Amino acid sequence: MKFNLIHTETNSKARAGELHTAHGTIETPIFMPVGTLGTVKGVHQRELKNDINAQVILGNTYHLYLRPGTDTVEKAGGLHKFIGWDKPILTDSGGYQIFSLSHKRKLSEEGAAFKSHIDGSSHFFTPESVMDIERIIGADIMMAFDECTPYPCDYNYAKNSMELTHRWLDRCVKQFENTSSKYGYEQALFPIVQGSVYKDLRIKSAEYIANKSSFGCAIGGLSVGEPEQEMYEMTNLVTEVLPKNKPRYLMGVGTPTNILEGISRGIDMFDCVMPTRNARHGLLFTSKGVINIKNVKWKNDFSAIDENAHTFADTMYSKAYLRHLFSCNELLGAQIASIHNLGFYLWLVTQARTQILNNTFEQWKNDLIPNLNKRL
Amino acid sequence: MKFNLIHTETNSKARAGELHTAHGTIETPIFMPVGTLGTVKGVHQRELKNDINAQVILGNTYHLYLRPGTDTVEKAGGLHKFIGWDKPILTDSGGYQIFSLSHKRKLSEEGAAFKSHIDGSSHFFTPESVMDIERIIGADIMMAFDECTPYPCDYNYAKNSMELTHRWLDRCVKQFENTSSKYGYEQALFPIVQGSVYKDLRIKSAEYIANKSSFGCAIGGLSVGEPEQEMYEMTNLVTEVLPKNKPRYLMGVGTPTNILEGISRGIDMFDCVMPTRNARHGLLFTSKGVINIKNVKWKNDFSAIDENAHTFADTMYSKAYLRHLFSCNELLGAQIASIHNLGFYLWLVTQARTQILNNTFEQWKNDLIPNLNKRL
Repeated sequence: MKFNLIHTETNSKARAGELHTAHGTIETPIFMPVGTLGTVKGVHQRELKNDINAQVILGNTYHLYLRPGTDTVEKAGGLHKFIGWDKPILTDSGGYQIFSLSHKRKLSEEGAAFKSHIDGSSHFFTPESVMDIERIIGADIMMAFDECTPYPCDYNYAKNSMELTHRWLDRCVKQFENTSSKYGYEQALFPIVQGSVYKDLRIKSAEYIANKSSFGCAIGGLSVGEPEQEMYEMTNLVTEVLPKNKPRYLMGVGTPTNILEGISRGIDMFDCVMPTRNARHGLLFTSKGVINIKNVKWKNDFSAIDENAHTFADTMYSKAYLRHLFSCNELLGAQIASIHNLGFYLWLVTQARTQILNNTFEQWKNDLIPNLNKRL
Repeated sequence: MKFNLIHTETNSKARAGELHTAHGTIETPIFMPVGTLGTVKGVHQRELKNDINAQVILGNTYHLYLRPGTDTVEKAGGLHKFIGWDKPILTDSGGYQIFSLSHKRKLSEEGAAFKSHIDGSSHFFTPESVMDIERIIGADIMMAFDECTPYPCDYNYAKNSMELTHRWLDRCVKQFENTSSKYGYEQALFPIVQGSVYKDLRIKSAEYIANKSSFGCAIGGLSVGEPEQEMYEMTNLVTEVLPKNKPRYLMGVGTPTNILEGISRGIDMFDCVMPTRNARHGLLFTSKGVINIKNVKWKNDFSAIDENAHTFADTMYSKAYLRHLFSCNELLGAQIASIHNLGFYLWLVTQARTQILNNTFEQWKNDLIPNLNKRL
């Protein structure tokens, strides 16, 4: 695996790069659709590939460990084969899900005890066991096991949590280095910067992560409830510290605006459930603003869903038809909206890349953001 | 519009034909996927066309009248344009839905008063108003407004109901002839044979319908709870009476076996919610039997969903993956299963047509049916 930083914009920190993996090249900046359980909700794999132009998708260690279980994923020959997806996959380590989903979690030096959100059964994750599971899943990019610090949290909690994450990282690295890919292709480990919204902690954590011989770097614990300005400030601080020759991944972010602001601060990779989750609620992102397709104003609007069509779904179906599908709670509504939103997100990062290469990103971003936040 | 009867099998009543409409030719026998509200649940229009090879789909007058409403369909320029489907459409008249879905229905000579199953609002359908709505929807094939006789029902109820359906038919024909297509292409009216499971009534109704100058003929009120042998017997009686040069449509039927037995008795057209509804419950029809994909036996079965692949979904995804999606209640599960089942139904009727043209249908059917009914 290899990351080539191709260009950094002259008047911002925005970067264009290429991340080469065994399953193909990812052009950065990139948005990664979230396929928690090995499926991007409502979207066929061939639609992801051919219509949305997804270059990499996410799977989730916590969810896949519980269902279908690592035994099934291993017997299938890894997640790529299990789900029928031959492009890159990144797996979240479960740190965030234990924090947000599971019951009665209890963290110790050794690891995290938690109860399944599905059936209440008891489980225990350690940095070592998570590495083992991610090896079995076979993701091209494996995330280190961390504690996702809640927000708000006091300084001492944030500091202790960050230090635990660092100690866990050392164990992740050791386990990662002592094991190898099960399926004959290279996997990479990304450590995660924590530190909540405390500047000194974020810098300290970034320095710790920067000194690791990892392939890339991630920023976790943001977009968890803090004001957007704090997210941007922390991102900016951290990317000042992280090595320039490694890809940077801002986890769980965000709105189209968040993504552009992240790119501007030197982030290369993003993921978020927002485009698919909002789609299922009838909220469509467009370059002119957000459409609530359930609104009666679209009842007889037979124009294309998005005239700046990024996928077949935008021109094949009208706003009135999509509204009708949502009014009737028809499956196809969620399917169309999900394809639209993901197509828009992928268009956004592809367009950002073009602008970066032209040194026009910052201006383009500043012109676009006021539109993105309109309510149509 | 034109129907060409191309061939009748030498050793059964099975027929192969061509039904020419303004939106293309339908090769019969045919199965028509049900798109009640202008969407075949969980399936994109381009999947219907390119993957499932659907030649005609159904819409429903009752449902479309309630949502999005005929005004919206008319403003869109008809249902084809509204939903983005340029192949033929057939619309059910609402007779069956008033019988099965609506509340407090009250039939009179004039028509049917009913309350919406959605919001309890009051509505009144007459043969004339239904023709007007179907003109607005713009279906290539419009069904006459009938009373779908419940099962069981006594002889007198069945006789009176049938006679009402006949009088309503006369009014439908008159209204149909006094109106014209709104969108510049030809529409056809299909009258419906009723008569419950009473032989003399079915024959009388078939004779009444046979004497109408309609383009095709439909058989209603079957597959509503009666034993299969009665359905087959009634179908056989009716097709003896119906004119040979018109297409015959057995409404709401049925299982793969029902369809083959219907074809054997001279039926050309079928529709049923079964392939899509059962798909959403994880039941897959195959030529080797029925698969309940939720069963734990498929947990680690990484073979193709159906080795006799009829669509991309059958080979792109494994049984184990599809089971996983159903276990997690993921949208993609219903999507894949719906494409599979519809692909299988369309394969079945296409294969039946080939066998009819070779005069091998009856034998092929008898060999296949024992497999179709197996539980895998």
